[in-house]
Amino acid sequence: MQADYLVLKKFVSSVFESIGCPEEDAQLAADVLVSADARGIDSHGVARLAGYVRLYDHGRLNPSPKIQILHESPSTALLDGDRGLGLVVAPKAMEIACQKAAIAGTGWVAVQNSNHFGIAGYHAMKALPQQMIGWAMTHAAPLVTPTFSREKLLGTNPIAVAIPALTEPAFVADFASTAVAYGKLEILQRKGMDTPDGWVQDRLGNPSNDAFAIKNGGALLPLGGDREHGSHKGYGLGAIVDILSGVLSGSNFGPWVPPFATAGFMQAGEKVGKGTGHFLGAMRIDAFRPAEEFQKDMDIWIKRFRSAEAVEGKQVLIPGDPERELETERKLTGIPLLEPVVEDLRGLATRFHLDFKLQ
Amino acid sequence: MQADYLVLKKFVSSVFESIGCPEEDAQLAADVLVSADARGIDSHGVARLAGYVRLYDHGRLNPSPKIQILHESPSTALLDGDRGLGLVVAPKAMEIACQKAAIAGTGWVAVQNSNHFGIAGYHAMKALPQQMIGWAMTHAAPLVTPTFSREKLLGTNPIAVAIPALTEPAFVADFASTAVAYGKLEILQRKGMDTPDGWVQDRLGNPSNDAFAIKNGGALLPLGGDREHGSHKGYGLGAIVDILSGVLSGSNFGPWVPPFATAGFMQAGEKVGKGTGHFLGAMRIDAFRPAEEFQKDMDIWIKRFRSAEAVEGKQVLIPGDPERELETERKLTGIPLLEPVVEDLRGLATRFHLDFKLQ
Repeated sequence: MQADYLVLKKFVSSVFESIGCPEEDAQLAADVLVSADARGIDSHGVARLAGYVRLYDHGRLNPSPKIQILHESPSTALLDGDRGLGLVVAPKAMEIACQKAAIAGTGWVAVQNSNHFGIAGYHAMKALPQQMIGWAMTHAAPLVTPTFSREKLLGTNPIAVAIPALTEPAFVADFASTAVAYGKLEILQRKGMDTPDGWVQDRLGNPSNDAFAIKNGGALLPLGGDREHGSHKGYGLGAIVDILSGVLSGSNFGPWVPPFATAGFMQAGEKVGKGTGHFLGAMRIDAFRPAEEFQKDMDIWIKRFRSAEAVEGKQVLIPGDPERELETERKLTGIPLLEPVVEDLRGLATRFHLDFKLQ
Repeated sequence: MQADYLVLKKFVSSVFESIGCPEEDAQLAADVLVSADARGIDSHGVARLAGYVRLYDHGRLNPSPKIQILHESPSTALLDGDRGLGLVVAPKAMEIACQKAAIAGTGWVAVQNSNHFGIAGYHAMKALPQQMIGWAMTHAAPLVTPTFSREKLLGTNPIAVAIPALTEPAFVADFASTAVAYGKLEILQRKGMDTPDGWVQDRLGNPSNDAFAIKNGGALLPLGGDREHGSHKGYGLGAIVDILSGVLSGSNFGPWVPPFATAGFMQAGEKVGKGTGHFLGAMRIDAFRPAEEFQKDMDIWIKRFRSAEAVEGKQVLIPGDPERELETERKLTGIPLLEPVVEDLRGLATRFHLDFKLQ
């Protein structure tokens, strides 16, 4: 099905309202979620809506959290998300980061006691209109093995950095610290295909091509794949994201990060901190050099890279190019939804007595 | 040859003094350089000393720079390195970052008009004794192709993050944003061996196993290797380092970053900014949560990861483990130097009328 962008957003918002979110929070959460679909990161979009509702059903989600600053300095804050939606807590944290940056030059907010925050890029991009560089990272439940490990100790732990240009669109890098996103395994599972080398390992830590490796006790590999190709760097990057999001915030960390609400991974286990954590930041450009000079140089950077001599049949892309183009297109033509996702949404409509028309 | 750690440091310092560095700067530069050898990153150690002298010979290095702050805010500064040694400019920048962090919670310093700063980890680790998280990154001359590019537009652009623990040694990640360090190609060149898949490409952008690929118009690949294995993430990471070190500081950036002093790569070409740039940062732990609580949790993190069930015959390492162990050993038993490096050093001793005894 091809859902209309605004209609879908309204439906998602009404589901969040149905579990008790205030209207403004529900709209914000819907905006974050549907923008993931619009940007082509479907795995983090409305496909997860039923999961958020399951989190609520299991008492792990507070729909009307009292988000508060526990500690702060001129350029930092520690935020308690009060078990709220990460989709709402993270924008609040980003707002504080930008306020701090406006005065102190930069602002950095560690968040504890939150839940899954959607796509990192959305939050980082919130800094752009203020001529700031935005940072967003979050950890997630363990699916990834450090180099040489058989145990899954890290999540896919994404990091996003958004950097404004002048006439060119912004540079927006948003990537997991793994070789490949979990969603790519799911696609191969549906097609009954094997994975390429270097994506997953089996439960003994041997190289594997099993698209179901994780279900069979295996794991996703860090960016780099194996030691010979720099997996210790992907592991290092994922670890930095986990420590800033988890340890610095007083959340759970490493193997103790609670799972998102996927079937069979519902209950959080042993705890070493509070909920899930994030880390957000904003750097005001003109705390370093005049913003327009910087933005002009960014235009030069972007044009030089985009026009680089490419491998035959290809083009060099700027981070954020594909997502931006897709977003423009899908806002006009609609969001494609897979049948199982439509079924999930229909179920929510029935449960909450909502009108189910997405076109 | 096995050189004594302190004797070698003294010799290196006297070389820097011979080209006009003040004594204190010379000692600092020697400390940074020899610590790279001690930590096993020989490619960034005294093997480069003759290169720094060549930079001086070609008028690209100011041995007694007037390093100054051009602009600042409570948590940021822009520093002009006045064409000084990066080995001296970067520690100065890190000192400013830590001073800012002591008051504003975090401190971030962009540096322009500098030169090669040695190993990133050295600078990041300077934050540790103050219960701060240290960040260091630098760009470098282009050896790396973005995904789908045939042109080399990025350096190996390393990033280091140092995080203090309580009873455990600190977490110190320090890695280039490429699949492999250039030094590993040089080792294979000497042995006449091919590279594994996924390290380099040829001049048309095809996969290659040529250890001399760069000399033949090819390039190092970003971390991830190819698109299927996430090279766009390694490219994104290298780009972030380049933009923070180069564009945010007003240095050169991308393909315009001037080369280090290797034969045939001496003269800087077209300019879009001033010299080489770095980006350094410090985050005070207790600007987020009480330092000791954090450090205790870091001990838990480190112990859990280090004791993870490992692949047969291996052990899960914490970033920084191998370098720290080597440093302890080499400070006692000495620094192994390859014969060509010894010859280089002997040449410098002759030129500057220095006593050449390294044991």
